[in-house]
Amino acid sequence: MELLKSRIVKDGTLKEGNVIKVDSFLNHQIDIELLNEIGKEFKSRFQSERIDKILTIEASGIAIAVIAAQHFNVPVVFAKKTESKNLDTDTYESSVYSYTKDKTYTIRVSKKYLNEGEDILIIDDFLANGKAAEGLIDIINKANCTVAGVGIVIEKGFQKGGENIRNKGIKLESLAIVESIEGDRIIFR
Amino acid sequence: MELLKSRIVKDGTLKEGNVIKVDSFLNHQIDIELLNEIGKEFKSRFQSERIDKILTIEASGIAIAVIAAQHFNVPVVFAKKTESKNLDTDTYESSVYSYTKDKTYTIRVSKKYLNEGEDILIIDDFLANGKAAEGLIDIINKANCTVAGVGIVIEKGFQKGGENIRNKGIKLESLAIVESIEGDRIIFR
Repeated sequence: MELLKSRIVKDGTLKEGNVIKVDSFLNHQIDIELLNEIGKEFKSRFQSERIDKILTIEASGIAIAVIAAQHFNVPVVFAKKTESKNLDTDTYESSVYSYTKDKTYTIRVSKKYLNEGEDILIIDDFLANGKAAEGLIDIINKANCTVAGVGIVIEKGFQKGGENIRNKGIKLESLAIVESIEGDRIIFR
Repeated sequence: MELLKSRIVKDGTLKEGNVIKVDSFLNHQIDIELLNEIGKEFKSRFQSERIDKILTIEASGIAIAVIAAQHFNVPVVFAKKTESKNLDTDTYESSVYSYTKDKTYTIRVSKKYLNEGEDILIIDDFLANGKAAEGLIDIINKANCTVAGVGIVIEKGFQKGGENIRNKGIKLESLAIVESIEGDRIIFR
């Protein structure tokens, strides 16, 4: 998606450890017009799939998922990372290791909001090692639902997450795939 | 907002401690059509205000803020509750006590995304004791910005948050104000 790639080049910044910071438009401050174009693009890439629901994970996936959901006309469910008195106790759970935060946490979705047989599209902002996406796939499997696909805004193609998911036979669509980072230059696949 | 109130009555559930659970349509599973009507309603209530940006707080405020932002044509910034290697170190911070989670946490917004003199609309899902909203107001003040208003989906009118914010002279618009909970009945103001 050229609009997205040129925005990453223009406003993204690189930090130590191959971190691509896009918090000026994607995951801290959010450019709503760009997000809407991203939503349209997801719709066009998954238009031949049956999709009953979009599943994402708090926090930065939520903005992308809800704007995309307008183009699919389906509800969004987001997996919770923190325990809350207000969350049902009857949940599907999975453990996810975060490299960014260097810890393992439990993600949870109330059993009420994933119904057996539904086709679920996963949407998230980043895919690197793929641990969050794998946790969501695990939850979808536990709910006896089907993974209709995985839609990612930025995939780090030099890490293993994308390959692992494609090897499962899952349709993965990443709107920008970063092949490598060379000095201060981002090379897209 | 009648559509919202009737949805709360129909699909909301009550839990011990005056908890109103609306996670089937607002803050775990999200009904995008309802959210869009909520966004329109916020626009109509704040149409006479100058608004440069919408500020919310992760996680459940994000969905509401981004859908509302489409009606205002402004960017969204969300305050972060967790530390992350990817967040700037140069941030505005405030401490917020959460009754739901029974702990105090620090919320942070990168200084880059609140520019002196901007008019900021706060949007969030719930207002009860108002600690999260006050934390966001504190951050807006620290950034030398102006609070253009506070838009809340569900206010618990029997708790102090709403009164405290109105007493500051801030325009607070809550789309549904729960006056009291009597047995299994919700009484709106």
